[in-house]
Amino acid sequence: MTYSAFDHPYLSGLLGEEAVAAEFSVAADVRAMLAFEAALARAEARHGIIPEAAANRINEACRAFSPDVGAMRRATAVDGVVVPELVRQLRRAVGEEAAEHVHLGATSQDVIDTSLMLRLKALAELFSGRLGSVLTALEACEREWGERPLTAHTRMQPALTITVADRLRSWIEPLLDHQDRLDAADLDLFAVQFGGATGNLEKLKGKADIVRATLAEELALVDCPQWHSQRSPIADIAHLLSLVTGSLGKFGQDVALMAQAGDEIVLAGGGASSAMSHKQNPVAAEVLVTLARFNATQVSAIHQSLVHEQERSGSAWTLEWLILPQMVGATAAALRLAAELAGNIRRLGRV
Amino acid sequence: MTYSAFDHPYLSGLLGEEAVAAEFSVAADVRAMLAFEAALARAEARHGIIPEAAANRINEACRAFSPDVGAMRRATAVDGVVVPELVRQLRRAVGEEAAEHVHLGATSQDVIDTSLMLRLKALAELFSGRLGSVLTALEACEREWGERPLTAHTRMQPALTITVADRLRSWIEPLLDHQDRLDAADLDLFAVQFGGATGNLEKLKGKADIVRATLAEELALVDCPQWHSQRSPIADIAHLLSLVTGSLGKFGQDVALMAQAGDEIVLAGGGASSAMSHKQNPVAAEVLVTLARFNATQVSAIHQSLVHEQERSGSAWTLEWLILPQMVGATAAALRLAAELAGNIRRLGRV
Amino acid sequence: MTYSAFDHPYLSGLLGEEAVAAEFSVAADVRAMLAFEAALARAEARHGIIPEAAANRINEACRAFSPDVGAMRRATAVDGVVVPELVRQLRRAVGEEAAEHVHLGATSQDVIDTSLMLRLKALAELFSGRLGSVLTALEACEREWGERPLTAHTRMQPALTITVADRLRSWIEPLLDHQDRLDAADLDLFAVQFGGATGNLEKLKGKADIVRATLAEELALVDCPQWHSQRSPIADIAHLLSLVTGSLGKFGQDVALMAQAGDEIVLAGGGASSAMSHKQNPVAAEVLVTLARFNATQVSAIHQSLVHEQERSGSAWTLEWLILPQMVGATAAALRLAAELAGNIRRLGRV
Amino acid sequence: MTYSAFDHPYLSGLLGEEAVAAEFSVAADVRAMLAFEAALARAEARHGIIPEAAANRINEACRAFSPDVGAMRRATAVDGVVVPELVRQLRRAVGEEAAEHVHLGATSQDVIDTSLMLRLKALAELFSGRLGSVLTALEACEREWGERPLTAHTRMQPALTITVADRLRSWIEPLLDHQDRLDAADLDLFAVQFGGATGNLEKLKGKADIVRATLAEELALVDCPQWHSQRSPIADIAHLLSLVTGSLGKFGQDVALMAQAGDEIVLAGGGASSAMSHKQNPVAAEVLVTLARFNATQVSAIHQSLVHEQERSGSAWTLEWLILPQMVGATAAALRLAAELAGNIRRLGRV
Repeated sequence: MTYSAFDHPYLSGLLGEEAVAAEFSVAADVRAMLAFEAALARAEARHGIIPEAAANRINEACRAFSPDVGAMRRATAVDGVVVPELVRQLRRAVGEEAAEHVHLGATSQDVIDTSLMLRLKALAELFSGRLGSVLTALEACEREWGERPLTAHTRMQPALTITVADRLRSWIEPLLDHQDRLDAADLDLFAVQFGGATGNLEKLKGKADIVRATLAEELALVDCPQWHSQRSPIADIAHLLSLVTGSLGKFGQDVALMAQAGDEIVLAGGGASSAMSHKQNPVAAEVLVTLARFNATQVSAIHQSLVHEQERSGSAWTLEWLILPQMVGATAAALRLAAELAGNIRRLGRV
Repeated sequence: MTYSAFDHPYLSGLLGEEAVAAEFSVAADVRAMLAFEAALARAEARHGIIPEAAANRINEACRAFSPDVGAMRRATAVDGVVVPELVRQLRRAVGEEAAEHVHLGATSQDVIDTSLMLRLKALAELFSGRLGSVLTALEACEREWGERPLTAHTRMQPALTITVADRLRSWIEPLLDHQDRLDAADLDLFAVQFGGATGNLEKLKGKADIVRATLAEELALVDCPQWHSQRSPIADIAHLLSLVTGSLGKFGQDVALMAQAGDEIVLAGGGASSAMSHKQNPVAAEVLVTLARFNATQVSAIHQSLVHEQERSGSAWTLEWLILPQMVGATAAALRLAAELAGNIRRLGRV
Repeated sequence: MTYSAFDHPYLSGLLGEEAVAAEFSVAADVRAMLAFEAALARAEARHGIIPEAAANRINEACRAFSPDVGAMRRATAVDGVVVPELVRQLRRAVGEEAAEHVHLGATSQDVIDTSLMLRLKALAELFSGRLGSVLTALEACEREWGERPLTAHTRMQPALTITVADRLRSWIEPLLDHQDRLDAADLDLFAVQFGGATGNLEKLKGKADIVRATLAEELALVDCPQWHSQRSPIADIAHLLSLVTGSLGKFGQDVALMAQAGDEIVLAGGGASSAMSHKQNPVAAEVLVTLARFNATQVSAIHQSLVHEQERSGSAWTLEWLILPQMVGATAAALRLAAELAGNIRRLGRV
Repeated sequence: MTYSAFDHPYLSGLLGEEAVAAEFSVAADVRAMLAFEAALARAEARHGIIPEAAANRINEACRAFSPDVGAMRRATAVDGVVVPELVRQLRRAVGEEAAEHVHLGATSQDVIDTSLMLRLKALAELFSGRLGSVLTALEACEREWGERPLTAHTRMQPALTITVADRLRSWIEPLLDHQDRLDAADLDLFAVQFGGATGNLEKLKGKADIVRATLAEELALVDCPQWHSQRSPIADIAHLLSLVTGSLGKFGQDVALMAQAGDEIVLAGGGASSAMSHKQNPVAAEVLVTLARFNATQVSAIHQSLVHEQERSGSAWTLEWLILPQMVGATAAALRLAAELAGNIRRLGRV
C-alpha cells in the first residue's frame, strides 16, 4: 500500500535507509511537534506569559502523550493540516486548567516548520557522517591505487593518461565541500519558526522577540524572525541535498562507464539478471545516477514553492511536504549506495 | 516510517485514496507479475514452446503463490530488481519438473513493465469514473446557477460580466477531453512488454510474434513489439496524468481566487485554523493547485528517462519507478478532492 | 546581444537551424498576426458583421503593412502584450472609415495564440520532413549493416549478441511514431483561437460560432471553441516536441557510448579539441543528449502553465512565450544534428 | 529571427535589460575569453614558462583582436566549442614566433568557464545594485504607509489585521539576504577555471599551482583547483538567481492579488487591453510570477548537469550553455520590473 520506493516493502532493499525513514515516521513527527509545544510553554513561562505550573503540566503531558492517529487523519482531511487536531488532543491531555495555555500565540505553521527543522538538523548530522564513510572508502582507494595510470576521457573519448588519484579527487573534492556545508548548517540554516497567526506574534506583544529567542535556545535551533512566507531556507536545504546526490551521481556515472569499458575497474557485489546468468550489473552505480536525476527534478518544485503568496499559502506549503521528504529519502539512499559502491571497488586504473 | 504523503498515516486523510493505493501494494504488484508469468506459460504452451502440463502447473502455482517478501527485499538490494528472486521463488513453488519452463524467454523488464501496464489500465478506468463524478457535480452547478452573472477576470483584473456557465465550461471541457483520452488508452496505450533478454526474443525463434500476440490477448493488453528502451508510452501516460491534475489545478486556483474575493461563491466544508477560529479555508481548492504543480514537476523526470541508453538502462528505468506511482497518487488525490470541492459548492455567481 | 544558443552568432553553427528561426522572426510573427486580422475581417464580412468594403480595405492594409517595431517594443513594455499597439498601427494604416472594423470582437490572446498555431503548423510539416531525413539515413544503415552482429548492452554491461538491425529498430520505431503524430496534428492539434475579451464572443451575438468556423477555414486551422484558459493543446505540442528530442537523445546517447567503446561504430565528422589534436569528439551525439535533457526540463514549465487562472492569466501565458519557442529551437537543432550524425555513420556492428 | 524573449525585438520591451544582454554579446564573450588568454600568457611569463616577449606579443594581439565570427560559427558546428577556432585566429594574429606560446597548457573549458565567471562577476555586482533599487523603493513604501492596517491573508482567506510594514518585511528580508549573498560571491563563488586537457595541468609540471594563482590574481577571480567536472559552483549561481526571482515572484503574486481585491493597493502604470479600454492590468506583477516559475524550471536542468561524466562531458556542459544565460536574463528582467512595480505603488493598506 505504499507508493514510495524509499519505504516500499521490497524496493526499500535497494532504495531505503531505515535510520532516515525513522525520522519521517508519525512517532518522530509527533515527538518533534510536541517538543515545540513543550519548549514554547517553557519559554512563555520563563517570560511570564503563562504560569509556571501550566508549563510544567504541558511538559508532563507532552512526555506522556499518545496520539489518536485516526482522529488526526480525519481532521487533516478537512483542515489541510494536522495541528488543530493535535492541539485539541494535547489540550485534552493537559486538562482543563492549563489547556488554554497550550500553543499560545503559535500557529500550525510554527509547529510543522519547526518540527521539520528539528528532524532535518538530526539528518544533516547523520548525512555528514555518511559522507564521511564514502570519503573514507574513496581515500582508501587513493592510498591503494592512486598512482596507477588511468585513461582520462573527455567528451566520451579517450584523452590523455592521468592517475587514478586525479579521477578520485574529482569525486572527493565536492563531497568534502558538501560535508562542510552540512556541518555549517547548524549555525545558519536550521532555524526555529515562530510567527503566530499572521507572522507578527501579535499575542505576545512586547515579549515576542525574547520568547522566540528562548524557544530557539530550548530547541537548539537558530533564532531568526519568522519565515512563514519566505521560503529560502527550504530551498537552501533542497539545493544542498541535490548537490550531494548530484556529486554522487557523477561518481556513479563514472563507475558505470568504467565498468562498461571493463579494463580500468574491478567491482565486487554486482547484481544478477533474470535472463543472463553471466552478468554482474553495476546496480549501485546506475542507481546513483537515478537518484541524482530524481533530486534534480524535485528541486524545481521547491523553487516553484518560493512563490508563497500572502501570509501563508496552503498551495505552496503543501507542495513542500510532497517534495522535501522524498529528496531526503533519495539522498539517504544515495549515501548508502555510494558507501557500498566505494567499498566494493577491488581495483582502479591499469595494472 | 513513510515518506509519501499519499499513503501517510495522517496526511493520507488529505492526500490519499485507498482504492488507488491498493494497486501499488505488494499484493497487487505480485498478483500482476504472476498474471504475466501464468499468461506467458499458457501462450507458450498454446504454441508448443513448453508442455501443456508445465503451463498448467505454473498457473496453479501462481494462483496459490505466497511471496517471501523479506527475501525479495534482500535480493532487490543486490540485483536492483525483484524479478530474479520472484522467479526463483516461483520455480520452487512450481516444483522440479516444470521449473525450467517458468519465465521462459522473458526478462525482468517484461514482467515489471507488463505488471505496471495491467495496473495502470485498471486505474485509467477508475480515473475515468472519478472524472465522471467531478463532471456530474460541475454539470449540476451549471443547471443550478449557469445563467447567473459572474465577473470575468483577465490578468487578475475584473473584466466584463459573463455567465457562470461560461466559467464552468472552461472547467468542464478539458475534463471531457481527458476522460475521452483515458477511455481510449485501452486501445492504444496499455501494451504488453515482451522482448526477452535483449529485445529480440531470441529464445522463441520463429514463434516470437505469435506468442507475444497470444500473451497480449490473455492479458487484455495491446500487442506491440517490445519497447524496453523506447519509453514514449510511459511519457504519454505521465502526460495524461499531468493534464488531469493541471486542469483540476486550474479549477482549484479559480475557486481559491473566488473564495478570496468572497462574493461570487459560497463553499461548504472549509478547513479550520489552529489560530483563527473564524476562518473557513478552501483547503481542497489550494491542494488542487499543489497537486498540479507536483505533477508538472514530475513529468520532467519521465521525459529525462526517455534517454534510455542501449538495450536497457538501469538508471532511466529506476527513475520511472520513483516517479510514476507518485504521479498516479497525485492524480488520485486530485480527483477525489475535485469531486469533494465541486460537491461543496453552494452557490456560484452573483445573486 | 543574444541569450539564446539557437540563434547566437556562433553557437548557432552547432545549435541553430535557419528555416526554423525564421518562423520566430518578427516578420513571421507580424505576418501571422495580420493573417488573423485579415481573415477575421473576411469572415465577419461574409456573415454580415462588418461591411464588405471594410474587409477589403483591411485586407489591403494587411498586405501593405510595415510595422513600427520600436513603438511595438515600447507598448509591450507597458501592456505586456503587443496586440493593442499592433491594432493601433493597423487601424491607422486602414484609415478612418474602416478602422473601427479592425479586430472586431477579438482580443489579444486570439491574435497571438492563432499566430503561434499558424507557425507551429508550418513547423510540424517541416519537422515531419526532417524526421524523414533521419529515418532515410538510419534505414540506409539497416540495409548496409543490419545483419551484422552487435553486442547488446543492458544495465551498462555487455549482454548477448544481437544484430545491428535490432539496435536500429529501437532508434527507428519511435521516430516513425512521432512522424505519424506530427502528420496527424493538422487534424486535431493546430486550432484557431477566437473567444473575444472574455471568451464568449459577446460582441458577435448569435453569429459567434459561424464566424469562428469561417475564420478557421480561412486560416486552414482546426475549428474549436476558444481555449484561452484551457491550455492542453500547448501541453500536447510541448509533449510531442520533447518526445522527438527524447528519442533522438536515446540515439545520441547510444552512439556516444558506442564511440567510447570504439569497436562497433565508425563515425566521420568528429570535432576537434583545442588541447589534444588526436581526438575525434562525437559532438553531435553528445548534443542530442543535451537537447533531450533541455526539452525534458522545459516541458515542466508548460505543465506549470496549465494552472491558468480565471479567463486569462498574464503569468501563465507569458511563461509559455518564454518556453515554447525554445523547445521548438531545441527540436530543430536535434533533427538537424541527428540527420548529420546518421549520415556520418561509416560502419555499425562487428566486422 | 530570435527565439529568446530576453532580447526579442519587441518582447524585450517587457522582458529585456540592455546592460545585461550586453554581457552575453559576442563582443563581451570574446573580450572575456581574450582576457583569459592574455592573463595566462602574463602568468606563464612571470613564472618562466614562456618568454616575456611572447607574453607581450600575445597581450598586444588580444587588445587589437578582431574576430572572424563567420569562421567561429563554422568551426563551432564541427568542434562543438568555439575555442579551437578562436585560438587558431589568435595564433595567426600573434604571428609565427609567439604563436606556439598562445593558450599553453589550457583547454577549451578553461577559456569558456573563466569567461563566464568574469561576466557573471560583473553581473552579480549589477544585480546587487538593482536589488538595492528595489529595496529603496520598498523602504520608501514602509516609511510612507508602514503603520497603516492591512488584512493578512492565510490560505487565500482574510485572517487578522496586520500592518503594511509586516507585509513589506516579508518582501524586503529575503532581498536583503540575497543581496548579501551576491556581494559575498566575489569571495567564494567566482573562481578561475584552469586545468588543461584533462584537469591536471600536465604541461606545467611543478609550476601548475603558482601559475593558476597568478592567473586568478590577474583576473581578480578566486583561485581554486580546476572544477571541470565538478559543477557545484554553477549550481550555486543558478540557485542564487532563482532565489532572487522566487522572492520577487512572491512580491509580484502578492501585488497581483492585492490589485485584484482592489482596496488595499493603488498602482500607477498598468497595461492596456486590446478589448477592454477600462482595464489597468498589473502586468509587471504578473510577469514577476512568470519569471519566478521560469527560473524554478531552469534550475532543474542545472542540477541535471551535475552528472558530468568523466573528465569533461560535452552533454552536460552544453546544457549549461542553454540554461544559465536564460536564467540571468530572467533575473535581470525581474529586477527591472520589480523596481518599476515598487516605484509605481501609490498607496498600500487601508485609509
